[in-house]
Amino acid sequence: MVSKSQIKLIKSLSQKKFRNIHKLFVVEGVKGINEFLYSDYELVSIYSTRQKFDVSEKYHLMVEERDLKKISFLKTPQEALAVFKIPEDDSVSLNGLTVALDGVRDPGNLGTIIRLCDWFGVENLICSKDTVDCYNTKVVQASMGSLTRVNVQYSDLKSFLLANRDFPIVGTLLEGDNIYKASLPASAIIIMGNEANGISEEIKDLISLSLNIPQFGSLQKTESLNVATATAVVLSEFRRG
Amino acid sequence: MVSKSQIKLIKSLSQKKFRNIHKLFVVEGVKGINEFLYSDYELVSIYSTRQKFDVSEKYHLMVEERDLKKISFLKTPQEALAVFKIPEDDSVSLNGLTVALDGVRDPGNLGTIIRLCDWFGVENLICSKDTVDCYNTKVVQASMGSLTRVNVQYSDLKSFLLANRDFPIVGTLLEGDNIYKASLPASAIIIMGNEANGISEEIKDLISLSLNIPQFGSLQKTESLNVATATAVVLSEFRRG
Repeated sequence: MVSKSQIKLIKSLSQKKFRNIHKLFVVEGVKGINEFLYSDYELVSIYSTRQKFDVSEKYHLMVEERDLKKISFLKTPQEALAVFKIPEDDSVSLNGLTVALDGVRDPGNLGTIIRLCDWFGVENLICSKDTVDCYNTKVVQASMGSLTRVNVQYSDLKSFLLANRDFPIVGTLLEGDNIYKASLPASAIIIMGNEANGISEEIKDLISLSLNIPQFGSLQKTESLNVATATAVVLSEFRRG
Repeated sequence: MVSKSQIKLIKSLSQKKFRNIHKLFVVEGVKGINEFLYSDYELVSIYSTRQKFDVSEKYHLMVEERDLKKISFLKTPQEALAVFKIPEDDSVSLNGLTVALDGVRDPGNLGTIIRLCDWFGVENLICSKDTVDCYNTKVVQASMGSLTRVNVQYSDLKSFLLANRDFPIVGTLLEGDNIYKASLPASAIIIMGNEANGISEEIKDLISLSLNIPQFGSLQKTESLNVATATAVVLSEFRRG
């Protein structure tokens, strides 16, 4: 049985406001939960219909499917749901490549970018305050455990960049140099912008290396690349050496 | 006013079965509709609350917001909805790079891959029969008009590949050669696999050039790249020259 107050608490964690008050977030599905269990994240409780997890019984509640339905954020609950603590912000020590997001709003895009940082060995992901919360359930789902390996920090992006001007500050802009031909530094802060508006004016002013991903083919296109796929191309290009 | 029979017809187009029976699909939003209007797609009708489109009046219905709500597939309808004809399958004449999808199921992934093909000048996208339908509303939304510039064809993938063995058949596999170091052909069929299971066994057997996108960083990762971001990396690498 899940108590009414537990249901209320867990349900409230779908909202950023309550995640910040309680400093808690939700992970759903056996695979995702195991990734967080074997990381530095601190477990609060697991609710599971069948699957056993390798944790002390006091954290582990076996529940009926109908109870899981009451607390799950998914249309089709995935056998288990866990609550973890949101860690305190670490001080960031930049190292090699860093990605900085300027107002990315779509949870799927942020989740995908976290996976890309994980894949391409980017330790730190800096998010502007208006970027979607990385403990949003859809971000946690889309990041597939990579959130346990990438340090995601929210900060005032302009101040952050001004404090780190010893790193080249890279942005992809239409008028930038062809990324395939430019000489790319081993250490840099790579800025990726908002889905609709790109990089904001005040952040653009701080860019020291402006790059462009060229289009191919004969047809005229009105669209840009999606921010997550553009991040994939940029990180691949920086890493390929 | 939108008649009951129109509402019923349009609503039915959320299902592949009825799209195939009527040979019709839906585009929502002014920007998307304009992309399809200025393409070879044939318009059937536009339902709009305010926005005027540059088409004959017989195709153009001004409707109330509550009527648009009745026919829209979106939670928040976007000012206008249009119905277009699904074109007959063209015969495919392969040229340069072709992408072939082996069971991609997520509409967002297919939409993103269509955008990538558009960006990287890939004219033909071949989809296995179990790949999600490109006229699915979510695919149309995610492809952002690129569907008007990329020729998407569904076929039995094995037969298609057997009929085109004069092209190198490329697949990304764990045991493949480092894509950053391999010599890549200018013409090829690039196969991308299912989200959960990758490329199927019978298709794997046909691969003539097996490539791998290396991971970076010191931490051990359990996850692969998402199929859309992997497609971004592969197409970028083939095009960069």
